[in-house]
Amino acid sequence: MIIVMNATATTENIQAVVERLTEQGFDIHKSTGATHTVLGVVGGAGAVDPRNYELLDGVGEVVRISEPYKLAGRLFRKEDTVIDIRGVKIGGNEIVLMAGPCSVESRSGIREAAKFVKRSGAKVLRGGAFKPRSSPYSFQGLGVEGLKYMREAADENGLLVISEIMDRMDLPTAMKYIDIIQVGARNMQNYTLLRELGNMPKPVLLKRGMSATIKELLMSAEYIMAGGNHEVILCERGIRTFESYTRNTMDISAIPILKSLSHLPVIADPSHGTGIRDKVTPMARASVAAGADGLLIEAHQDPDHALSDGAQSLYPDQLQELVEQLRIISKAVNRTIAPEPERINVS
Amino acid sequence: MIIVMNATATTENIQAVVERLTEQGFDIHKSTGATHTVLGVVGGAGAVDPRNYELLDGVGEVVRISEPYKLAGRLFRKEDTVIDIRGVKIGGNEIVLMAGPCSVESRSGIREAAKFVKRSGAKVLRGGAFKPRSSPYSFQGLGVEGLKYMREAADENGLLVISEIMDRMDLPTAMKYIDIIQVGARNMQNYTLLRELGNMPKPVLLKRGMSATIKELLMSAEYIMAGGNHEVILCERGIRTFESYTRNTMDISAIPILKSLSHLPVIADPSHGTGIRDKVTPMARASVAAGADGLLIEAHQDPDHALSDGAQSLYPDQLQELVEQLRIISKAVNRTIAPEPERINVS
Amino acid sequence: MIIVMNATATTENIQAVVERLTEQGFDIHKSTGATHTVLGVVGGAGAVDPRNYELLDGVGEVVRISEPYKLAGRLFRKEDTVIDIRGVKIGGNEIVLMAGPCSVESRSGIREAAKFVKRSGAKVLRGGAFKPRSSPYSFQGLGVEGLKYMREAADENGLLVISEIMDRMDLPTAMKYIDIIQVGARNMQNYTLLRELGNMPKPVLLKRGMSATIKELLMSAEYIMAGGNHEVILCERGIRTFESYTRNTMDISAIPILKSLSHLPVIADPSHGTGIRDKVTPMARASVAAGADGLLIEAHQDPDHALSDGAQSLYPDQLQELVEQLRIISKAVNRTIAPEPERINVS
Amino acid sequence: MIIVMNATATTENIQAVVERLTEQGFDIHKSTGATHTVLGVVGGAGAVDPRNYELLDGVGEVVRISEPYKLAGRLFRKEDTVIDIRGVKIGGNEIVLMAGPCSVESRSGIREAAKFVKRSGAKVLRGGAFKPRSSPYSFQGLGVEGLKYMREAADENGLLVISEIMDRMDLPTAMKYIDIIQVGARNMQNYTLLRELGNMPKPVLLKRGMSATIKELLMSAEYIMAGGNHEVILCERGIRTFESYTRNTMDISAIPILKSLSHLPVIADPSHGTGIRDKVTPMARASVAAGADGLLIEAHQDPDHALSDGAQSLYPDQLQELVEQLRIISKAVNRTIAPEPERINVS
Repeated sequence: MIIVMNATATTENIQAVVERLTEQGFDIHKSTGATHTVLGVVGGAGAVDPRNYELLDGVGEVVRISEPYKLAGRLFRKEDTVIDIRGVKIGGNEIVLMAGPCSVESRSGIREAAKFVKRSGAKVLRGGAFKPRSSPYSFQGLGVEGLKYMREAADENGLLVISEIMDRMDLPTAMKYIDIIQVGARNMQNYTLLRELGNMPKPVLLKRGMSATIKELLMSAEYIMAGGNHEVILCERGIRTFESYTRNTMDISAIPILKSLSHLPVIADPSHGTGIRDKVTPMARASVAAGADGLLIEAHQDPDHALSDGAQSLYPDQLQELVEQLRIISKAVNRTIAPEPERINVS
Repeated sequence: MIIVMNATATTENIQAVVERLTEQGFDIHKSTGATHTVLGVVGGAGAVDPRNYELLDGVGEVVRISEPYKLAGRLFRKEDTVIDIRGVKIGGNEIVLMAGPCSVESRSGIREAAKFVKRSGAKVLRGGAFKPRSSPYSFQGLGVEGLKYMREAADENGLLVISEIMDRMDLPTAMKYIDIIQVGARNMQNYTLLRELGNMPKPVLLKRGMSATIKELLMSAEYIMAGGNHEVILCERGIRTFESYTRNTMDISAIPILKSLSHLPVIADPSHGTGIRDKVTPMARASVAAGADGLLIEAHQDPDHALSDGAQSLYPDQLQELVEQLRIISKAVNRTIAPEPERINVS
Repeated sequence: MIIVMNATATTENIQAVVERLTEQGFDIHKSTGATHTVLGVVGGAGAVDPRNYELLDGVGEVVRISEPYKLAGRLFRKEDTVIDIRGVKIGGNEIVLMAGPCSVESRSGIREAAKFVKRSGAKVLRGGAFKPRSSPYSFQGLGVEGLKYMREAADENGLLVISEIMDRMDLPTAMKYIDIIQVGARNMQNYTLLRELGNMPKPVLLKRGMSATIKELLMSAEYIMAGGNHEVILCERGIRTFESYTRNTMDISAIPILKSLSHLPVIADPSHGTGIRDKVTPMARASVAAGADGLLIEAHQDPDHALSDGAQSLYPDQLQELVEQLRIISKAVNRTIAPEPERINVS
Repeated sequence: MIIVMNATATTENIQAVVERLTEQGFDIHKSTGATHTVLGVVGGAGAVDPRNYELLDGVGEVVRISEPYKLAGRLFRKEDTVIDIRGVKIGGNEIVLMAGPCSVESRSGIREAAKFVKRSGAKVLRGGAFKPRSSPYSFQGLGVEGLKYMREAADENGLLVISEIMDRMDLPTAMKYIDIIQVGARNMQNYTLLRELGNMPKPVLLKRGMSATIKELLMSAEYIMAGGNHEVILCERGIRTFESYTRNTMDISAIPILKSLSHLPVIADPSHGTGIRDKVTPMARASVAAGADGLLIEAHQDPDHALSDGAQSLYPDQLQELVEQLRIISKAVNRTIAPEPERINVS
């Protein structure tokens, strides 16, 4: 911590700050310049609240000199973290596609979805079983039953399963059916849940809260990692701004920023990031162009009759077409994506 | 729901929208104007996502004609809800003061706090036992032990107890010690927790999420009320904006807005709303001037040595002085606050 | 400027930063701590862009140690600036009320307005002659003709005149009719206009831009003051946030913050700050409770037929009633406001 | 305009609204549903403020049924507007690159810049002569002299010139030297300037204000178009959010949204959109992937010694490399960009 005293600070002011710091167990390194005195502060026990010092007489500014996150940062680990789930590598050279409906609606529905998802080149089947709905009167999901259907549909097509868990009490059961645990934007700072995930032997996809800063997203990742689980995937899904044309404003710049601050894989969710189907495709392309390690996309065999979020779900054809565009773009960033479907050799 | 077709919409466009609506079980009332056709849509089952219709060809705008909340709204209940907890009335003519430290730090500390809190005229003792901290490495609170200390300190001074609960698993135990269950800003959309609170026979103070709209706050109250618990207190505690001088921007205008949309009591938390001691007093005054039914204020017998949020905690003297200012202001809004301390009659 | 090197910075990194600084004419004071090296940077010519150093290898953080504004800051002038315009003192103990219609609509209209404005105890007549309208198809104001009407109406009632000027070409003419030049939120960073105002011998009321930080508002005041005109009045009028219930979110906390950072008077505009009549009164009360030096309020003798902003204009009775409430609140902050109307002594 | 009455509105309420509307010259089409009465409102003179009706008793919601902009909208013109400036087509199939330094610093500097800008495949030379600086103490640009240098440098290399004009008084002179007039973000709602531009026979590049909604950007375009000048280029350059890691949050989704609402060309400025060099390249790629018609990029032959914004300026090599990546991405959106440099035919 660096404390910059005001140009008008008196000797008594400076002395009072130094005493307060010493009392808290800090070592102080004082340097007196032409106009300002600067105190370098080292040691002490535990986290410090800079505001405690900002309030003291004569103090101009208090600056933290280290980021509050450790394990999630590039300083802790220089090379990119690659999470390998039965051969599917997230954070590696290949951009990973996760797709599927907003909610699991029925056994047959999710089996149908899994087929076209597989065909598109995706590696992971997404779908909600426990749904966080802003109205208590809306469809709340099929629960564990939904997870079972997903597992079955995924297994039939050689896909992994990702699904959101909202309550730590659901974790033990959910662990049997899913490969990646999704933490939703509204739970990004549900510390009880995050702490529990630190003990789980499963990768976690952590969505950025609607108004979370990049630093706060990394601190939430730190919560999970501090418990021992280092397999965290960060996910940008749109932030809240004054612009009301879209549900959220997708912060594409968060992708390269997160990649430079952290070694963790970074995924983009253009479906929630925009909330409207015809903007999903351009924003998916933009995410890959900006360096995303993967995409989480809502797609449905019949979006017009989806029980939730149909308006932001792609039709199977649109998903297919998007993948073809992404195949071109991924070359511009020296990456690959879903290998081209095998062609039947007719000769 | 009202669907306004574009001026350029064709007869086929209109027909397609009508068919889609009929298919979903709606009754349609079509009115053809000089330039636009407008469809009034009635009935149907369950919540509707307006975006499903916005995407159809020829549709200009889709407007919900009823608020998504019912029980929390003024249409459901015209008169103000007054919550009576052993004689302390929240939402009535008297403005209720809730004060105390950020965290319960020790048995002796909270007992000392309860004394000066009582002296100030406050009716409720606040204090955190389960602390939501953005760093996994910070002090996380004393847990149930802290609640016991609070109960004892409150009882000694004839105060009620308010404390935050973050996890539904802690509710049964917490119920024994606290009078008002606080839901923190980060949990405003923790639907699992909200649903559980709907079954609890205790008032709930629900804090507005850092970037929650007023409508979303009311929807979260609706979650609790839909379960049967109608004793919900709304709390404005600052929203996130681009301004970085304060931790949050306290949205004082939310107070009169909530009072006009809802019958529930509205409380303000200027401590978290500003994050810095010397701004707490002016914002507390502003909250009462704007019509708040109460205040939730952090105060500590020794803020310089508080384990958390010392920088935004008032000194006991400041709390006393604030109450005196509020006594004047409350007259301007035809309210009362903490009756003046008894004067010793020397004769 | 303080440059904090990363814990992992090499000697070469540090050397490179030092060389770059030296090249730019800075003196460097290097202090090597246990984990970080910190460079204190003094001197150099002109403003520095900290980003130039943030990009260098090994640099952790770059901190400005002085605010970019000088003349507008408390360090430049400790005591409050009081602007005296023919006996009306802005920034003194008496809270100054400025009221009137959004636009000057006609000669008779503004004369009628001036009468009830005077009666309320206000000292300044507000009214727009040059209107910034977001639609090119809306009423754009009466121009210079409107200013003449305002002057006449104000003179008849012993009031001062405040009106917005949008273009520096209109200044010479406008100077003849108005006492306080208003700069609108949309022009807060119209540097051409600000620079010109620096040469004018008239006080300027500078509104905070819709998304301007407090620091930026002070920098815009600095622009005017740097030209020699030190009579600047700051005005909070609502900022843009995600909340869409009101037009803007009035940032009441900006009032005490501006008062502590700057010696300039601070005025609040609850009419634009909320955009809707029934929220103007509570927010006016809150502004005074938070320490505002004055209020700028839209009021109209017949708001239902106003040519602009009728929805946020008070009725004459409401203005009167507000002043009575403010008279009580001003005592809580040791201020006065419009002295009570004389009582006829019947005996 | 559609007025939806509350379910609880009385017959008297409805009658009062109808009378008010009739008085204002509107025709009303009343439709009474099972729960709500809906009033369709047609005709009347001039722009209407919906808030005037929201305040009336019994009114639930007031909805505008037409966008406030006309000329800028897709309804006015279905096909894309292509602006042809001496053969350079903006808004056509080829993505247009505009590049150059933040400020024109010297005659030799801009001549050097023009050379590498041309080499990269750009068609337009950018550079600031009149600089809007947030500090009155910063470098303010070379003024008309700077424009002359730009013109010369551009002519030597067969480039067009774009430069920002802040004051309408500078327009007549500037017109001699520049091909595209740039309106900066801070002047997006400088209506005096916009109106003047409506009379100019030159294309205008209009930057989105820092906190302007998409609708407001289109309304500002409307101001220019209403004056007769239909050659407006829209430019996304980042909006202000709570995230402080970058200067602005670039709203990439505004690109496809603007393209669907308006027929005008849409350009992206990733330099101001991010404010830091290493994020410019990924955001430039994202912009093209999202459908931008062009890019406005700061590049400098020696960014380390630039007089302004060096930290966000690309090195010539980086610009070259970016164009190569964009060449790949443009194929994914069926566009072209700067044709590959001619290869020397060795035979």
